Amino acid sequence: MAGLEEIFRYLDAHLDDAVADALRYCRQPSVSAQNLGLEECAALTAQLLREAGCASEVVPVPGGPSVVYGRLAGTSDKTLLLYNHYDVQPPEPLLEWTSPPFEPLVREGKLYARGIADTKGNVVARLWALRAYRETMGELPVAVKLLIEGEEEVGSPHFEDFLRQPRERERFAADYCLWEGSQVDWAGRPDIRLGVKGILYVELEAHTAARDLHSSWAAVAPSPAWRLLWALGSLKGPDERVRIPGFYDAVRPDTREELASLEGMEDDLEQTRQAFGVGDFLGGVRGASYWHRLLMEPTCNICGLEAGYTQAGVKTVLPAVARAKLDFRLVPDQRPQEVLALLRRHLDQEGFSDIAVRALAAEAPARSPISAPFVGLVARAAQQVYGAPPGIRPSIAGTGPMAPVVELLGVTVADCGIAYPGSGVHAPNEHVRIADFLNGMKHCAAILYLLREEGAGTGR
Amino acid sequence: MAGLEEIFRYLDAHLDDAVADALRYCRQPSVSAQNLGLEECAALTAQLLREAGCASEVVPVPGGPSVVYGRLAGTSDKTLLLYNHYDVQPPEPLLEWTSPPFEPLVREGKLYARGIADTKGNVVARLWALRAYRETMGELPVAVKLLIEGEEEVGSPHFEDFLRQPRERERFAADYCLWEGSQVDWAGRPDIRLGVKGILYVELEAHTAARDLHSSWAAVAPSPAWRLLWALGSLKGPDERVRIPGFYDAVRPDTREELASLEGMEDDLEQTRQAFGVGDFLGGVRGASYWHRLLMEPTCNICGLEAGYTQAGVKTVLPAVARAKLDFRLVPDQRPQEVLALLRRHLDQEGFSDIAVRALAAEAPARSPISAPFVGLVARAAQQVYGAPPGIRPSIAGTGPMAPVVELLGVTVADCGIAYPGSGVHAPNEHVRIADFLNGMKHCAAILYLLREEGAGTGR
Repeated sequence: MAGLEEIFRYLDAHLDDAVADALRYCRQPSVSAQNLGLEECAALTAQLLREAGCASEVVPVPGGPSVVYGRLAGTSDKTLLLYNHYDVQPPEPLLEWTSPPFEPLVREGKLYARGIADTKGNVVARLWALRAYRETMGELPVAVKLLIEGEEEVGSPHFEDFLRQPRERERFAADYCLWEGSQVDWAGRPDIRLGVKGILYVELEAHTAARDLHSSWAAVAPSPAWRLLWALGSLKGPDERVRIPGFYDAVRPDTREELASLEGMEDDLEQTRQAFGVGDFLGGVRGASYWHRLLMEPTCNICGLEAGYTQAGVKTVLPAVARAKLDFRLVPDQRPQEVLALLRRHLDQEGFSDIAVRALAAEAPARSPISAPFVGLVARAAQQVYGAPPGIRPSIAGTGPMAPVVELLGVTVADCGIAYPGSGVHAPNEHVRIADFLNGMKHCAAILYLLREEGAGTGR
Repeated sequence: MAGLEEIFRYLDAHLDDAVADALRYCRQPSVSAQNLGLEECAALTAQLLREAGCASEVVPVPGGPSVVYGRLAGTSDKTLLLYNHYDVQPPEPLLEWTSPPFEPLVREGKLYARGIADTKGNVVARLWALRAYRETMGELPVAVKLLIEGEEEVGSPHFEDFLRQPRERERFAADYCLWEGSQVDWAGRPDIRLGVKGILYVELEAHTAARDLHSSWAAVAPSPAWRLLWALGSLKGPDERVRIPGFYDAVRPDTREELASLEGMEDDLEQTRQAFGVGDFLGGVRGASYWHRLLMEPTCNICGLEAGYTQAGVKTVLPAVARAKLDFRLVPDQRPQEVLALLRRHLDQEGFSDIAVRALAAEAPARSPISAPFVGLVARAAQQVYGAPPGIRPSIAGTGPMAPVVELLGVTVADCGIAYPGSGVHAPNEHVRIADFLNGMKHCAAILYLLREEGAGTGR
């Protein structure tokens, strides 16, 4: 693969330029939760795309920050979509940063800045991969489209509606997609991830009186705390099985390839257990059963509980109101709206029609098949760069706006990227190692190279 | 009863003086929860006692505010104890008062001040009853002792230990006791109350990790909110029956007189329901079954629940800690420390040894028998003043430091007083009606009169 080595040499030679772009990009704050610098960052994103030779456009999104669209032509009729986002998490707590979050710097072979790992560094790495390919090999083997949104860190509330518009579906039509940016594990092996869980976030409320009462009235007056607690108790017991009838009906059966991938995954239980300060994991799971629960099974979690008096000491009160916040992490093919309806019906049938349910957020799950040709190609490209077969995870445990891309555009999605477990994603002192940054550029370039070598048309 | 009419005339003639004393007493702030003005109020209490002709002493209490002791001689060897307290509830929220809480005033036949109903007005009313008796009839028929403590509103934390000292038990030895101060009902009929519920106030805590985690980890990491909720669910179900084995074992059987008293009580359900803004009462109770639950049965109430994120909107978090505050209202002969031990054992047996239990407050229940001669005398005295038979309640639904008095001094206790359901006890704009204040003086005087007429020695 002489051509690939030439591309790699180009990237090695231009590493300083790529690092400079990454620092420049991260210097622009773009905190979606605080509506800070978003349009400025969209404009800078479009500028970076143009510098890399892409046609680019800032596309307005009603009610939300703009989406940046980019395009490069290719020699085949296939299209590779690069999904990313230019917004970042809030930098707080600021006192825990050793250097200011929006004053990027290089220290001991690492790039420090808010957003460098999640995920501006990936945008820059991929733009330099495109440039390297074109400077050394000529025209790309497939058309490349970039879709870079500005509110991923707040749950992409406008993304599905945006992509549902016929004009945008056409604009972003593609065959396969590289997702925003994964990581290499502690051993340096890249994690290729193929899916996300969905989420249904609800608030449950019991309201039994016009005001808090003296607790002696608990003998005869209803208690919202007990009502809520009994209602929650009907949702899940200590066996961790969700008791809402029909909850598991839509869960897609695991494929043989998915189960095999779980068997092959490193068991980092002890490290995780100690880092979190937890005792045993639920059900004493380990190995593949741990990964199955974490990546393949839906959850019913209590994010918050609140009733009555919660300060220090004694107050004898019968509260008037009790509230709980729950998130259900969903797996394919569960749908948030269907789970919401099942939850309401279940509460009614269990005698809890007095418990109000309000949905605060919903995103559908998504997962691409391990057996998709594009996944195999991304894995082979990783082997070229990292010198070992990558880990392939059928899903992450968290949520992202992958379902609209998978379902509306009909593409296969794979996620790979430049972070590592110590990157401090969403935390102070976020950083990436320059060696990982370089490998990320090369992996993207290798994907393009294999798309030419192996024939872009062999499948999705 | 010519003598009684003479006493009443004296009280009618001196009503303005008694009102002036009540206003003077309430002008002195004495907020035990805020350690405000307590010793000043103890001194003023002793001064009021001396003005009424009592020998009085301010008795230091290690670690708490002083107790005021007063004494008057009598012609028999029997002793009537008057239990009261000089501390008051905090006045907050101040903005809801139409006149300042410690600037007492008379408006439309009512006395407004923090503490006037609970319970400084009762102290003054009883002192004037003693004075009226002695000015018109001569020496009292029984010795009278006054025990006026300064931390009833914070649960009398030093009271039992204080009274357990041999010296204090002897000092306050008595045969019967008038409790701090009850009320007349909406129809103007006095409530005579013979008992209190006890309390065990506990905090339960589940702690599963060193810090909050991203909620995607809920698939494999334990949740303190679910642990706590399942533990609480094992304590009580929707049938309202407490499921802790042995919880009800010590409950004293109701007497025939107690059950009959419940049958005779006014059913003010609809008024209470509307005032509280509640729907149905638990189990649809009404009439005697309502009163039985409210006054005679123990409770298990959730005062507070807290875990994770409780602000507006969405935060996807697996909390590290969850806490609940519970109060058990206990009835004779349940003991708080025994219930605490039963609770701990139950949680351990149900698999919740990970749930920490901490007792924050404990008071024993107490109840005097309806059949006690002193109770009948207090009722007959009420008939003389109010012109109708009083209501006799075996207990209140709340808690007070009655058990040390009943158990350590071995006295029969009855509670009667000057408030009415609109008095706003513990609330802004606390007040009493002057007509009730006068009747309260007369009731106390009539009790003294009947103790002479009917023979102080006929029983306790």
